[in-house]
Amino acid sequence: MNYYTVIAYDGTHFNGWQAQRGENKNLRTVQETVEAVAEEIFKKRTVITASGRTDAGVHARGQVCSFTAETTIPPERIADCFNAKLPKDVKFLESGAAEENFDACRSAKEKTYVYSLYLSDRENPLLERYHVRVQGNLNVEKKREAAGVLEGEHDFKAFCAANSTAKTTVRTVYEIRIEEEKDAFQNCVLRIYVTGNGFLYNMVRTLAGTLLDVGFSRRGIADIERALKQGDRESVGKTMPAKGLCLLSVRYR
Amino acid sequence: MNYYTVIAYDGTHFNGWQAQRGENKNLRTVQETVEAVAEEIFKKRTVITASGRTDAGVHARGQVCSFTAETTIPPERIADCFNAKLPKDVKFLESGAAEENFDACRSAKEKTYVYSLYLSDRENPLLERYHVRVQGNLNVEKKREAAGVLEGEHDFKAFCAANSTAKTTVRTVYEIRIEEEKDAFQNCVLRIYVTGNGFLYNMVRTLAGTLLDVGFSRRGIADIERALKQGDRESVGKTMPAKGLCLLSVRYR
Repeated sequence: MNYYTVIAYDGTHFNGWQAQRGENKNLRTVQETVEAVAEEIFKKRTVITASGRTDAGVHARGQVCSFTAETTIPPERIADCFNAKLPKDVKFLESGAAEENFDACRSAKEKTYVYSLYLSDRENPLLERYHVRVQGNLNVEKKREAAGVLEGEHDFKAFCAANSTAKTTVRTVYEIRIEEEKDAFQNCVLRIYVTGNGFLYNMVRTLAGTLLDVGFSRRGIADIERALKQGDRESVGKTMPAKGLCLLSVRYR
Repeated sequence: MNYYTVIAYDGTHFNGWQAQRGENKNLRTVQETVEAVAEEIFKKRTVITASGRTDAGVHARGQVCSFTAETTIPPERIADCFNAKLPKDVKFLESGAAEENFDACRSAKEKTYVYSLYLSDRENPLLERYHVRVQGNLNVEKKREAAGVLEGEHDFKAFCAANSTAKTTVRTVYEIRIEEEKDAFQNCVLRIYVTGNGFLYNMVRTLAGTLLDVGFSRRGIADIERALKQGDRESVGKTMPAKGLCLLSVRYR
């Protein structure tokens, strides 16, 4: 039978989602961790397919996975069986029966990532785990204007890692939403929500870096237009650190 | 000269604020950590006085401290000098010159703590560090009603640890505010803000446990009234875990 799960993980001590082979075989990954538990529970080697990989250090609130298994455990209790054996930094939030042809990766239609930043002249230990600190006078309106330019179907070649092996670098970004808030502890936090039909390697982190440059007036809208039209990597910002990134949700159908 | 600082720390790996002596001398504490750096910077043993102790595992966003030192470092740069030498889990957010008679502990007039909870049937690794998970159908309005009964000047004997050495157990709680929100990651988070002129050992954590009991209909308003009037420890809830508690701010003058 085919199942789906929604998984959350703190990426700090994981080398990303994907199980490693060869000389990297000993690196701790989320996939290898959940597959080891699956083998214990189902008494059989079980491949767990995620909606997509996440890089080393990236977090997930709503990673969706699929797998097939023969078991008498009620579908919605599978999550609890896994959680009893999983380490503290990865847990199943949900599980259930899936349609026969459901594949968490190939069936995915839309993903939303959040990039979290905080504005402060000094490091705050309570924010450092899931946010990246920025300093200075940030113009959020300018960032929003730049975000509008990035929305839509574009060739995002300039925004992806040079070693990307993607067949095409064209993607559609449905929405980039920027929210500025005082959090519950009076910290000034900035979130960049990016929703699209798929993302290239490092793309969201480079989008975040580019939007920050615009907010700090280090780049203008023209740079972004050049990056999109000419694939000019010099026109985009730096790839921001992994710890600020979180896969929020994946949508299907 | 006399100085003040505002300090933030992640309490996870600290045995509370207070430097330990005797057989506990090797326990890592915030005070011992900042005093070791102070000695390096000022070339002299320097006592750092906090607004009050925090227990093992409790976090702080706005702990206020005072100390005297002879130094040519501009008062507002002292924070940066400390931060260069402090570990990642404790940092100075602010520093400055203080009036001669300012004492972070004795001059404190009012403190605000926040207790953070999340409602979920399953553990979420991204929340576990700073929140405590609760399950079930919580009646927030009932909690708010109970919070109103706790506000004011009362004998909080029933709410403090049995081994408390406080001279008096009378305290004034100025306000208990309960906020329910969807956080940026769509988690259902509950915060209990408690402001008072001082708190007994474990008092905020026991107030949080008692309010939760009321919210889950395990206790009623009458229990709280009995606890306040008769000091009846059986009428209060359990002391909630340290990791959900954070000292938010301290007010002076």
